Amino acid sequence: MTLHPFDDATALEPAGDNTWLGRTSAAYANMVGPFGGVTAAQALSAVLRHPQRLGEPVALTVNFAAALEDGPFEVVAHPARTNRSTQHWTLEIRQQGQPVLTGTAFTALRRETWAATEHALPDAPPPAQVALPVGAKRVEWVNRYEMRFVEGAFPSQWDGKDHGVSRTRLWLRDAPPRPLDFASLTALADVFYPRIWRRRALLVPIGTVSMTVYFHADAAQLRQAGTGYLLGQAQAQAFQGGYFDQTAQLWTEGGTLLATTHQVVYYKE
Amino acid sequence: MTLHPFDDATALEPAGDNTWLGRTSAAYANMVGPFGGVTAAQALSAVLRHPQRLGEPVALTVNFAAALEDGPFEVVAHPARTNRSTQHWTLEIRQQGQPVLTGTAFTALRRETWAATEHALPDAPPPAQVALPVGAKRVEWVNRYEMRFVEGAFPSQWDGKDHGVSRTRLWLRDAPPRPLDFASLTALADVFYPRIWRRRALLVPIGTVSMTVYFHADAAQLRQAGTGYLLGQAQAQAFQGGYFDQTAQLWTEGGTLLATTHQVVYYKE
Repeated sequence: MTLHPFDDATALEPAGDNTWLGRTSAAYANMVGPFGGVTAAQALSAVLRHPQRLGEPVALTVNFAAALEDGPFEVVAHPARTNRSTQHWTLEIRQQGQPVLTGTAFTALRRETWAATEHALPDAPPPAQVALPVGAKRVEWVNRYEMRFVEGAFPSQWDGKDHGVSRTRLWLRDAPPRPLDFASLTALADVFYPRIWRRRALLVPIGTVSMTVYFHADAAQLRQAGTGYLLGQAQAQAFQGGYFDQTAQLWTEGGTLLATTHQVVYYKE
Repeated sequence: MTLHPFDDATALEPAGDNTWLGRTSAAYANMVGPFGGVTAAQALSAVLRHPQRLGEPVALTVNFAAALEDGPFEVVAHPARTNRSTQHWTLEIRQQGQPVLTGTAFTALRRETWAATEHALPDAPPPAQVALPVGAKRVEWVNRYEMRFVEGAFPSQWDGKDHGVSRTRLWLRDAPPRPLDFASLTALADVFYPRIWRRRALLVPIGTVSMTVYFHADAAQLRQAGTGYLLGQAQAQAFQGGYFDQTAQLWTEGGTLLATTHQVVYYKE
């Protein structure tokens, strides 16, 4: 049986206390180095594999400190503080002994509580009625996701005009389909193409510097989501002084908000 | 001349490489321990005082790993990676040798670029037309802020009904007024009372576990904001399995989006 490319990409080998070895995956190659969503998933993967892990991921923040070089890396996941039902982690990915990613994670034993999705699933035609984009993909990792744009598709004309809005909505899932889990949801939280490209229709240099994911679903809800489509929505709130933010949501087709996520991105213009 | 209570609260003494000593402030006391916004500001304060700091804060994430005890603490701010115009920091606050806060920060030299506030200042009557809340404050730190609620004020009736929405809008500033800077803006990003109290009008136990602030303004824009009011808006997107999120914005009266911020909060119900 062949491994799904995402499982292959996020595989880690134990390498001592709190430490694992991984390597970048050609299947998720970006313009330079790997797709950041998979790098974030690799960092979380060390927490998920840790023998002392308590509970499930609730929050993850990763900071992209330097471009990863293609090849091997070391992941360190350190349980900095373990409480009765919660645990705080510090994360680092290193290459040649230097940090290329820093981060923190929070895991917890979840309990049944009163619950509500306040940010409701936006109106969208069902996935089967939304066409796949045509044309060659510019970078390899984009081929690892099925993306059906409902609004704010990747620009086909780079006219450089201010389009006034940066919102994108799309149905998305792994390609080929793969049952959802915390690692793949982390990567899915980073699939949105840069909001400045959407707003300005201008292909300027960009790079995510920090990304946070809040997991609202537990493992059982992710299993239930299975290989179904997620509706993803992303929008910037401000562009200023070389950095813009992105706030995004990922719902199941049934309207459960699985994750909310934010990032801040460098841009040059 | 008397120090403003916020400057007194965020004062730190150098204590060796990357390390400072601080103490909790009675002026910002919460129900148990200190107001988390000031704790976050104290962590950032170590970065701001660091002799090797490059640039200004762009992103900050802090995780509240354990309740702070009233008294002294140690802050460690470590420049994990310094690039040409950006710098990645790891943060820790310790008491009795144990981490009570973990975090990361990102600082950068900002450049003039094309800029836009996409999330516009919501409609609100000017601050002078919005009444101050009446009645005694339940915790001391609330007295350190002037809060004029436009929408979603602190509930006066705890009826336990589902009010269907968790949004709050308010004019706010330090009390007494104090010129805005990165540290005080960090604390202001945490002034919103818990969204579940708003949504359910139910005073359930809560605690912020992780908070992220993206700074869209540079030091010059903060100086320009001075002692003016900020419009703050906060809303939850999901409540699930003992945790809810909050997404929030802080604008100047003139409509500049100074910061966007997110947090994930434990609740028991």
